[in-house]
Amino acid sequence: MNIPNTSKPRIVIIGGGFAGIAIAKKLRNKNVQVVLIDKHNYHTFQPLLYQVATGGLEAGSIAYPIRKVFQEYKDFYFRLTSVAEIDTKNQKVISEIGELHYDYLVLATGSKTNFFGNKEIERNAMSMKSIPQSLNIRSLILENFEQAVLTKDDSEKNSLINFVLVGGGPTGVELAGALAEMKKAILQKDYPDLDINKMQINLIQSGDRILNTMSEASSKEAETFLENLGVKIWKNVRVSNYDGKTIITNSDLTFETATVIWTAGVKGALVAGLDAQSLLENVKRIRVNQFNQVKGYENIFSIGDIAMMELEDYPQGHPMMAQPAMQQGRLLGENIIKLINKQQMIPFEYNDKGAMATIGRNKAVVDLPKFHFSGVFAWFVWMFVHLFSLIGFKNKAVVFLNWVYNYIRLDREGRLIIRPFKRKSFVTFTSDEV
Amino acid sequence: MNIPNTSKPRIVIIGGGFAGIAIAKKLRNKNVQVVLIDKHNYHTFQPLLYQVATGGLEAGSIAYPIRKVFQEYKDFYFRLTSVAEIDTKNQKVISEIGELHYDYLVLATGSKTNFFGNKEIERNAMSMKSIPQSLNIRSLILENFEQAVLTKDDSEKNSLINFVLVGGGPTGVELAGALAEMKKAILQKDYPDLDINKMQINLIQSGDRILNTMSEASSKEAETFLENLGVKIWKNVRVSNYDGKTIITNSDLTFETATVIWTAGVKGALVAGLDAQSLLENVKRIRVNQFNQVKGYENIFSIGDIAMMELEDYPQGHPMMAQPAMQQGRLLGENIIKLINKQQMIPFEYNDKGAMATIGRNKAVVDLPKFHFSGVFAWFVWMFVHLFSLIGFKNKAVVFLNWVYNYIRLDREGRLIIRPFKRKSFVTFTSDEV
Repeated sequence: MNIPNTSKPRIVIIGGGFAGIAIAKKLRNKNVQVVLIDKHNYHTFQPLLYQVATGGLEAGSIAYPIRKVFQEYKDFYFRLTSVAEIDTKNQKVISEIGELHYDYLVLATGSKTNFFGNKEIERNAMSMKSIPQSLNIRSLILENFEQAVLTKDDSEKNSLINFVLVGGGPTGVELAGALAEMKKAILQKDYPDLDINKMQINLIQSGDRILNTMSEASSKEAETFLENLGVKIWKNVRVSNYDGKTIITNSDLTFETATVIWTAGVKGALVAGLDAQSLLENVKRIRVNQFNQVKGYENIFSIGDIAMMELEDYPQGHPMMAQPAMQQGRLLGENIIKLINKQQMIPFEYNDKGAMATIGRNKAVVDLPKFHFSGVFAWFVWMFVHLFSLIGFKNKAVVFLNWVYNYIRLDREGRLIIRPFKRKSFVTFTSDEV
Repeated sequence: MNIPNTSKPRIVIIGGGFAGIAIAKKLRNKNVQVVLIDKHNYHTFQPLLYQVATGGLEAGSIAYPIRKVFQEYKDFYFRLTSVAEIDTKNQKVISEIGELHYDYLVLATGSKTNFFGNKEIERNAMSMKSIPQSLNIRSLILENFEQAVLTKDDSEKNSLINFVLVGGGPTGVELAGALAEMKKAILQKDYPDLDINKMQINLIQSGDRILNTMSEASSKEAETFLENLGVKIWKNVRVSNYDGKTIITNSDLTFETATVIWTAGVKGALVAGLDAQSLLENVKRIRVNQFNQVKGYENIFSIGDIAMMELEDYPQGHPMMAQPAMQQGRLLGENIIKLINKQQMIPFEYNDKGAMATIGRNKAVVDLPKFHFSGVFAWFVWMFVHLFSLIGFKNKAVVFLNWVYNYIRLDREGRLIIRPFKRKSFVTFTSDEV
């Protein structure tokens, strides 16, 4: 990888998400060499991907060039590649651009869409975990409408403008709301020859409430907000298959649709090479102790979505969100320095700041640790929290301007099909690689 | 194409560039049916493509959804497709999504890169005529740098950061200036382990001055501005081949480079089906009379880059730029209505508003019909002219904000590699189709 060997310990971080960026920042000029590896040259602000997928924000507004974050750092190296494997015996990372020895390794590879082993759904449904995937969804939505104006076959037309989102977590809920706004603000006006009332947005949830990691009040209010926007919510329904045309469920219910967006689950984006005892094979996550140290290794750590710290309070690990990832990253930055200096490491304690989800243009639900609220005020809180999180990561004025513009004008600018519009070539883009 | 047959005459416009948009706007609610066909769902503000290619502007800032322009129009239809052929005998357009009868046909298909028959150059060089092509160039520049930090082989490294632009017209000149600014503002800071002084920007011009359609003063000043930015200008040099590694020229001069951007010529983007006598085969343009009526046809017209009106004052036709395209489009809109109403059509007269080119962050050259000026003031003129041209086509505040931000901060935000970063898969994107 053409990285100089020095006398300083080398810390290799795989993954430039919230966790990886947080630890790399903490290690600034700490007399260590830091190598950050990612398969994209930018950090993605994942909580707003659904806005890119529905044309509310440009890709550039929620992505930030990784090299720019670290421009002023000494002994810092970024490498753009995919890591296939790690060799823990020889302390090496094995990638497409060569091997690299590490003294300390930090696995912050995040999560990817979990299709629970169903290859047919994986082939036919869309994921929304990266910017290219979100751009693909944006193109597909618009391509569907372009296709729908052409056909005289009513069942084909209905299938093209029937959008099914599987998974009622924050991603599915926020996407459903944004799609409902897009229907009203753009699609109705852009496609006057279509009967827009026939456009359906179906949200399928396997459990008995959406947003089931939030309070019951939030679930209930989110359902009301979505229904007011015209979203149909199907609870206690499990999708068993999707062949590209028809969704089969565990009941008699079926859906004819050209578009399934799958947000029903995630799993760790594992790199090969760790010992089986370090892994939770079913969810592909890595078992770590309270110092985010991987079970069975002294000098390998894991943080963020992929790390699973089994605590009494969090038997499933911490929530797979930005907050735990950043908090773990920051603490591990300090702890690795302590370890190098032979000091006692500090155990991780999660500072739960609550959770929130936005529904459409001006509604949100917010659960603070001891307090719940929702509606327009919650939306403003949601917006400011996200705006402030973007500060330092991006020329936030542009994001803010876009938001305000959307809010006032009820319009969305980002509706370019910049990927090839032929469905066949299109599908080749939706793999995890992009 | 699923377009209703009415008693109104149907005018089919192929191409949503400056010319096609201008005529469609003129035909608003004029008791005709208008069908506009384009292979993209957006209009591209081509004069600023070089800014997308060098990360100065986001794609969305210079593209505008075509359907949005025409939201309020009656009897207007947009169709997203490529037109393969026209059948003039049966008055039909033949496309990927079916055939369509026309009463009047307007060919506004614009121009594409001319490699003058050299297939090897075409395969290995990049074009910059569309947004996907500009995004490809942006990705390639960044990929080259990512690759350059990996290699220990000096000649490979130099080849990766040697950029050769072939063609000293406005596109080549503006791109060279923007690339020089990118070198200083981004690449130097983002790649501290590379010796940025080894990055070369070579501009090759076959004639004895750059900007040879502008005044001699503009050519000379543009050369000085570029040289001050570190661009090497090679005049009276013709590129004879490029195999992906080495440029061969008509002299002993060769260039070892991984990146050639070809702006050395354009030709019409012809659709098959016109009679040979209507065409200028060498430049693939369509011969039109003073009413933009295609030679040999009563009801077929052509406007913009592809139309060639052979006049004494303009033996090569009008300049292939936005102004003549828009002026022809607007007049033809009126003339077709006159023709339908059996009135006399008005011959086209080009109102030459001059030409300008920008060089880098704060310099430009401007030729007005009777007046020439250059430097920082010219840059402000250039900027305001472009900003005002964008009004109505886009939320211009975002563009303006980006500009001011770039100007003040000397920074560029849009540097995401959002296309696959492997060179091999990458090359498949550079075809004319995207």
